[in-house]
Amino acid sequence: MTTSTSLRRTLAGDLRPAETVMIEGFVHRRRRLASVLFLIIRDRSGLAQVVITEDRERAEQLGEETVIRATGRAVANPQAPGGVELVDPELEVLGEPDGPPPLELWRPGLKASLPTLLDHAALAWRHPARQRVWRLAAAALQAFRGALEAQDFTEIATPKLVGGATESGANVFRLDYFGRPGYLAQSPQFYKQIMVGVFERVFEVGPVFRAEPHDTVRHLAQYTSLDAEFGFIHDHRDVITMLRSVIAAMIEAVAAVPGADLDLPAVPAEFPVIHFAEALALVGADPGEPDLAPEHERRLGEWARTEHGSDFLAVEGYPAVKRPFYTHPQPDDHRWTNSFDLIFRGTELVTGGQRLHRLADYRAALAARGEDPEPYADYLATFGYGMPPHGGFAIGLERFVAQLTGAANVREVTLFPRDLHRIAP
Amino acid sequence: MTTSTSLRRTLAGDLRPAETVMIEGFVHRRRRLASVLFLIIRDRSGLAQVVITEDRERAEQLGEETVIRATGRAVANPQAPGGVELVDPELEVLGEPDGPPPLELWRPGLKASLPTLLDHAALAWRHPARQRVWRLAAAALQAFRGALEAQDFTEIATPKLVGGATESGANVFRLDYFGRPGYLAQSPQFYKQIMVGVFERVFEVGPVFRAEPHDTVRHLAQYTSLDAEFGFIHDHRDVITMLRSVIAAMIEAVAAVPGADLDLPAVPAEFPVIHFAEALALVGADPGEPDLAPEHERRLGEWARTEHGSDFLAVEGYPAVKRPFYTHPQPDDHRWTNSFDLIFRGTELVTGGQRLHRLADYRAALAARGEDPEPYADYLATFGYGMPPHGGFAIGLERFVAQLTGAANVREVTLFPRDLHRIAP
Repeated sequence: MTTSTSLRRTLAGDLRPAETVMIEGFVHRRRRLASVLFLIIRDRSGLAQVVITEDRERAEQLGEETVIRATGRAVANPQAPGGVELVDPELEVLGEPDGPPPLELWRPGLKASLPTLLDHAALAWRHPARQRVWRLAAAALQAFRGALEAQDFTEIATPKLVGGATESGANVFRLDYFGRPGYLAQSPQFYKQIMVGVFERVFEVGPVFRAEPHDTVRHLAQYTSLDAEFGFIHDHRDVITMLRSVIAAMIEAVAAVPGADLDLPAVPAEFPVIHFAEALALVGADPGEPDLAPEHERRLGEWARTEHGSDFLAVEGYPAVKRPFYTHPQPDDHRWTNSFDLIFRGTELVTGGQRLHRLADYRAALAARGEDPEPYADYLATFGYGMPPHGGFAIGLERFVAQLTGAANVREVTLFPRDLHRIAP
Repeated sequence: MTTSTSLRRTLAGDLRPAETVMIEGFVHRRRRLASVLFLIIRDRSGLAQVVITEDRERAEQLGEETVIRATGRAVANPQAPGGVELVDPELEVLGEPDGPPPLELWRPGLKASLPTLLDHAALAWRHPARQRVWRLAAAALQAFRGALEAQDFTEIATPKLVGGATESGANVFRLDYFGRPGYLAQSPQFYKQIMVGVFERVFEVGPVFRAEPHDTVRHLAQYTSLDAEFGFIHDHRDVITMLRSVIAAMIEAVAAVPGADLDLPAVPAEFPVIHFAEALALVGADPGEPDLAPEHERRLGEWARTEHGSDFLAVEGYPAVKRPFYTHPQPDDHRWTNSFDLIFRGTELVTGGQRLHRLADYRAALAARGEDPEPYADYLATFGYGMPPHGGFAIGLERFVAQLTGAANVREVTLFPRDLHRIAP
């Protein structure tokens, strides 16, 4: 059971009839027939079938997830995955599992509760259907960056250890930073705005941290934020246009993942836009409501579908009272703002908008809220250096993938989720 | 001084003679001559010259870093940046600075101490030479990912909030995680290994955290780690080969950044490799030394230059006592390991190697060090599921850029560095 290591590895997906080929992978499944044993080998490209007729007793011992190298003849067999199988193999064990795995990866679906999947995440992600979920996420990440780089955005890397809360003090993680208080950044908001002063167009993909005390299907203590910010805009409508191009690229990339098999939305040439006040009227809500309830968003999603044939709807003009202090007001009526939420199939997917860019406006906005400007001194300095009109948006990777795949819980699409109860694995 | 907003913006770098063009950017410099005032406008593409002959008094007031829109006629002038300048402009102010900026960005070099640069980072990065430094970093990031994606690596996003120290308990940030102890991840090491069991080949670009109590030119409390890990290797030499292809792509990308003007190394077809024991002998060090001193690395760099005509040298076989417990031993002599450092021009640039992949080997390695396996239970579980031989490497983005640019201090090439003394801006 030893074999030449000089032979180059062939991936399962590349298997073609040949005299001698070598494959390597995990024993995904053993299928025992009377006259023959099949080992189904899984590698990063897919599955390959190895046919064992001799020395069967030894091969029978190779439990699921054993890592093996198989060298043999590749022959056509329409019944085998990919139409080719490996016969007369020499087998070599590269890595032995410590007993049968606690999940049966060879079954088409993983029949386990969410807590069990999360406890055994290292194993559960090996399941082909789970792998596919993350491949969608990875494709979305790559497309997000590619779409922005193609439009002259520069990637940035900003501090996750900060001296003050970014978004609100309510759900921030505190830590001891060399003897003084430090916080984990809740978003790169301030830094991406600062960097608009440098590169005009910037993006960052990175972890953000929220000490969410609530146990919901949409919140995590750490998630991956896809942030973009850019200058020299007219108003938030330019941000919606840019967001559309990015979302289109991300969905195109997700659609190209082999086996994705998703009910993916068509991305319209322009996202339909409705004003917050009209949206309230449309769903029959009190015109004084400061926010949209989930039920309102759901009905707006239906309306966009019916009225515009679109799975997407941008709601602009959110009330100033519900938006952060850096939000740019609607020029003709300061009750409203130049900010928006993008609703996808009835659920909020992205938040964005135009920001204030004048120092005097920042000072006034903080004063109006009775906030001390001192903790924001480093941030405010930027606006004292001269800044263009600018805006941006942030997409939560996990929510994006959950909504595209129809996952009920963001934890299903997060490699190793962190929440109120979970800091491992 | 108002202008039509329906005209599309032209970037400075795209300026060609035309009847009416509109540019937007920062007033980089005012040059006052007797008969004319030049406004040099900076945008993300470069500089453009605007010639003011009328209404000069108002334009004189536009201090450096004022954000303006200028609409006028573009005419050829060989003296102007890019050979074209804007004449008879209408000017519109988009954003006003709050007085003269504390750094003179129009000077060819920023004459300021490092602490001053860091205190005014938001402004200092606007300087064209500083911009270029970060553009190198962004190009390196993009190339790192591109090189690995082209070789079938999958991007991952792993937890930065963890239940135990990854690399060593010595320099870990502790925090209160919903009432129990939590830590900031010192590296994605364990998670990238776990994910090799899923996708075989994975990478992650993200922040890592070290509570470094020492104030050195090479250490930061947060840096950007470029991590790769892959399975089905023969040994660490496969890792060195992969690393070479990635470094080659990164340096090619850096070289393509406009105005880079760096003394970039040629990347040899293969990195020369020397064993740690030979390296000690070569520099005349005690054969019992467990590590290379900076002076040793410097002399090895010179030797690689002279002997191999290479700016790079991989030193393999580092002593087991100086490497983490997950390091794979050298099969024929367990005093040494299948790990390596890549030395670039006499300084360590990358660390990598083959890891253990059998559960029994992990248990033995921890026992030999007298370490309790319990804190590693989630990590060790992976090896109990069956794992292929694997290895990887990690490149510190800031060190990489510092070494390529000859920066004396990693803080010079970090957007907003974090260290013992600094958590702002």
